[in-house]
Formats: sequence, C-alpha cells, structure tokens
Amino acid sequence: MKKLINDPKTVVDESVEGFGLAHADLVRVSPDPLFVARAGGATTGRVGIVSGGGSGHEPLHAGFVGHGMLSAAVPGPVFTSPTPDPIVAATLAVDGGAGVLHIVKNYTGDVLNFETAADLADAEGVRVVSVIVDDDVAVKDSLFTAGRRGVAGTVFVEKVAGAAAERGDDLDAVAAVATKANSVTRTMGVALQAGIVPHAGEPSFVLADDEIEIGIGIHGEPGRERVTLEPADRIVDRLIGPILDDLPFSSGDQVLLFVNGMGGTPLVEQYIVYRRAAQVLAEKGIEVSRSLVGNYVTSLEMQGVSITVAKLDAELTELWDAPVETASLRWGR
Amino acid sequence: MKKLINDPKTVVDESVEGFGLAHADLVRVSPDPLFVARAGGATTGRVGIVSGGGSGHEPLHAGFVGHGMLSAAVPGPVFTSPTPDPIVAATLAVDGGAGVLHIVKNYTGDVLNFETAADLADAEGVRVVSVIVDDDVAVKDSLFTAGRRGVAGTVFVEKVAGAAAERGDDLDAVAAVATKANSVTRTMGVALQAGIVPHAGEPSFVLADDEIEIGIGIHGEPGRERVTLEPADRIVDRLIGPILDDLPFSSGDQVLLFVNGMGGTPLVEQYIVYRRAAQVLAEKGIEVSRSLVGNYVTSLEMQGVSITVAKLDAELTELWDAPVETASLRWGR
Repeated sequence: MKKLINDPKTVVDESVEGFGLAHADLVRVSPDPLFVARAGGATTGRVGIVSGGGSGHEPLHAGFVGHGMLSAAVPGPVFTSPTPDPIVAATLAVDGGAGVLHIVKNYTGDVLNFETAADLADAEGVRVVSVIVDDDVAVKDSLFTAGRRGVAGTVFVEKVAGAAAERGDDLDAVAAVATKANSVTRTMGVALQAGIVPHAGEPSFVLADDEIEIGIGIHGEPGRERVTLEPADRIVDRLIGPILDDLPFSSGDQVLLFVNGMGGTPLVEQYIVYRRAAQVLAEKGIEVSRSLVGNYVTSLEMQGVSITVAKLDAELTELWDAPVETASLRWGR
Repeated sequence: MKKLINDPKTVVDESVEGFGLAHADLVRVSPDPLFVARAGGATTGRVGIVSGGGSGHEPLHAGFVGHGMLSAAVPGPVFTSPTPDPIVAATLAVDGGAGVLHIVKNYTGDVLNFETAADLADAEGVRVVSVIVDDDVAVKDSLFTAGRRGVAGTVFVEKVAGAAAERGDDLDAVAAVATKANSVTRTMGVALQAGIVPHAGEPSFVLADDEIEIGIGIHGEPGRERVTLEPADRIVDRLIGPILDDLPFSSGDQVLLFVNGMGGTPLVEQYIVYRRAAQVLAEKGIEVSRSLVGNYVTSLEMQGVSITVAKLDAELTELWDAPVETASLRWGR
C-alpha cells in the first residue's frame, strides 16, 4: 500500500484538520467529538442540516458544508459510521431554534447511529427529522444495508435541502424537499479497480485484469454482476438502462444528469461516460436540463463511476440553482 | 489496461464532446479543428485568453474556460501538444479586437506550436502576446523541456490573467499580470504510481512497491530522485523546502497554498498534505491567505500530488478573488 499518510490511525483526524486549515473562511472543525460546521455557527430561525458517515467518500460530506447546503458534517472512521456522540454534538451546535434535518445514507450503521443521536438531541430539546437516502438501484439489500444503498444521489438531496433551509422553509418543509429529491433520484455504479482502506492495507476486493463490477457500492460492496471489460458506451448502457426503468423516467422529463467519479477515474473518462449517457437520454426524449460531472462521492481511489439521474420539477430546479458556498461545490449563478 | 473508453484513438474527441454536452451553458466545442471556447463568443474590446496543451491533465485547460478565466482551450492528443491549426482557429475565434494572450506551459512542443500559431494569427491581423509558465522547481531541464516545466501553477496564472482581462486591462497589462503571477509561483510534485496513457496501454513509468519519485513531471518525466516511501509529513517537507528556498519566500509573505491532486490520490490524502504544508508555512511566518485543494492539473490517474506556493500582493489577491464561472472553478464570493 502506497499512500500519502502518516499513520492509518490518524488519517481522518489529520485530514479533517487540514480541511479546516484550508477552508477556515467556510468551516470550523471540532476535533473532539469530531465534526465540521459552518464558520458562522447556527443561524437563528433557520433549519440546520447535518449529514455524515464513514470517511473515504470525500468531498462528501464535509466538502458540502457551507451557505446553501449542509450546516455540519460528521466524518466517521474510513468506511465506518460515526458514533452517536459527534452526531449529537453537531446537531446541537447547528440548531438555530428551528430544528435540524439529518440526511442519512441508507447503511445500517449510519441509520442506527443517527437514530440514536436524534433521540439524544430530542432529549436536549432539539427537534430532529431524518431523511434516508437510498438512490442505488443496483441491488435490493446489500452488505451493511437493508434496502437500497444511499450513494451519489446524496449530493442532490443535500443541495436542494440546503437551499430550502436557506430560503427559510420550516423543518417539515425542508424534510419534504429532501424526501421528494430522494424519491426522484436513481443511481448505479461500476468499478474497474478497488481502493485500499488505509487500516486494511489491501484492496477491498479484487477484480481480474479484464473484469469490471456492475452495480458496485461505494464501499466496494458486491453489485449485480462481474463482466468482462467492454467499451465505455456498452458499460454506460448497462447502468443507464436499470436507472431509467426504475423510476421510471419517460419522454418529456427534465432531469439532472450526474456522472460521479469514484476517485481514481480521470475526468477524461468521466466525460466519455457523460457523452454516452446524454446520447441515451436524448434518444428517449428525456431532456438534460442540469448536469454535474466530477468526483463528488468517492470510494477512496476506486476506479469507476456512477451515473445518477434525478427528475427535476420547477421547485427542485430552483433549489439546485440556488447559490451555494462550500469547499467542493460553489455556484457561479 | 482497464479504462472507461471506447477506443484509444477517440478518447479526446469523445471526452471533449461530452464536456461540451455537459457544459453547454458555458462553452461551445469546435470539433474540427478541436477547441473549446466560451459559449458567448468573443467580447468586443476585451482581451482574449487562449491556453492549451496535451490532454490528460483535466480539468486543465477546458475546465477553466468561462467568464473570468480562459476564452478558449485547445486540447491536444493525450500528453501531446496540439498542432498550430486549432490554436490559430481558437485565437481568431476569441479575438474581440483587443488582441489575444497565449498562456503556454513550458514544454518544447507547446512552445513551438503556440509560437507558430501566434505568427499565423498575427498574419491574420490579430495581435498575440505569449506568456510561458515555468513554475516547477524540481529540475532545470527535463524530457520535452528546455528550462523549467510548467505545471500546476498554470491554474493561478490563468485565473489572475482571466480576471485582468475581464476587468478591461489591455493586452500588455494582461500579459504583465500573467508574467508577474508566474514569476512568484513555485511548484514541486511527487508520484506514488504512474497513470496509463490510453494509446500506450501501460504505465508511463514503474515505481517499486515501496518507492516514490520526488519532483515528478505531469507526464511522468523524471524528477530529482526516487526514495523509499515515507510518512506524508516527511514527503511534504521534501517538496516544500525547495519551493520556499527557490523564490525565496520569507517571513511576512502572504501566499496562496495550492495542493493539487495528480488524479489518483484521494482528497483525504490531499488534505493530510495540505495540513503539513500549512504547518511548515506557519512555522516560517508565511501567511496562507488563500488556498486551493483538489485535482486541477492531473496526469490521468497518476497517484501523487504537487504543492504550489504563490506570493500574493494586493493586486494578485484581488484578481484571484474575482468572480469566475467555469466548469471546474467557480467562485462563491
């Protein structure tokens, strides 16, 4: 294993410390319990939004803390849920009196720990509503998951919920926006090569030199099938088909098309994937009205991508377009 | 070689086509000769800015085309300079009557082809001034390079020159800003593992399982030395020392600190690198007043990072902070 780290045990603490140093204009890091919150603190009367989960998916979630998106992010150990303590601390820190939304990727550990944290925060007088993200169409249940996994669609949910909170929606309304966003979002991924978890020291899984895994999870959980490497366009067809069939999406829909790099796949390849996905949507009369391409929900240095399609209505489009100021997502308009 | 491509021969064309589809609000792609220009076309009376070079370094350069930064980018084949033809076409397309600045990384092929293109554009009545970026302190001459290589500092030069053009500076003034920016910028990189050029099909160079290369170039050109893998903090010290000694930077300086991922190194590691670099600068009394962390000048999926330090004055800070609206760099402020 070759990594730019000092010690597998200190990877997350040191990385988050560096994140805080690099983005001191945007965020403050609480080292113990570990969470990242907006530099400005809680805004009175505004709904707070907290997300989190295992580290190794950066920029998710800390890279999305800031005006118009998350109020705080709680990074756990690599690929391991944070415990309830830091989630509670983050929740109390960002409450401005209007309650706090928890956005939770559907992994059993995350769901349990956020649930416990919500109860503890409630006991402290902070009302919490939780929305579970489960956008991955690849498999019904998975390692670590009852039901579908929460993957790249989390970025969309966090963005629109953050914009709803920023415009002054109350907690139930922000939760309704997040729930709606999740309900119209579908994702599927592919891996060409696994990443290496620092404390494990070896790849999470092994694919043969000519093998890829369709429907991979963001921790390397098994997908639908392993197939022989094919041209990119064929691989995209294998991903986009199940995505479109699932909602289903249909002619006349306006969508966000989001190609997400898993960490080790260069942009030059991600745009080849985007090209084919856009072609398929055009052939089906589905209009791509918004797009996103890049490494947003990664799996360390895993080589692969996921494709996310989210059906937009006027409200979701407006919320997606609203200004945001975070380390890893900033809006020009 | 496992890559998300259809054919090594069509990688760049298909990727740029996808880029154009994803960012139709920002850019237009000319397929033949191949270049990417702002969607709005040339602005009358504004200086145009064109950069370019071999592909494989994305988001450089096309990801920086848009308001406040580049007018056009000319992508060559992977790791190979574009020929003069598309550079001329891009130059003519973005001229708004105030002339065009070429920003050229110091590689022999790029320098020659941009020079030829400048002469040809001049013959068409468009005045061109060229600024060469040579921020890499690692080696004096290199493969493909007489003098120092132009690497990640190019992002800084393109950003501040773009802002100067946007505020209405004339061609000589924009060139002076770019020249100043280059003169105060120093970079050095490290590689842990090479990327694979699609048409080559195998890694550009081979490092042993416990070996890293200090001073690597963005095409995998040899650096200063190969050493055994060390803790990240030690590696950072090996990079930052030569950077600071070279300008030299000194106590009281205000700087931009830019940690650039080479493509295959996850953000979690890049922030560990940033942390140590920030510590070293603090110890030396150098104030980090601006920062950037992420994959901006990559080498396909190479694992490694570079560190760039640029000395800021009031003008460069103002230009760095100016609004920008591109696919890969957008400003919130």
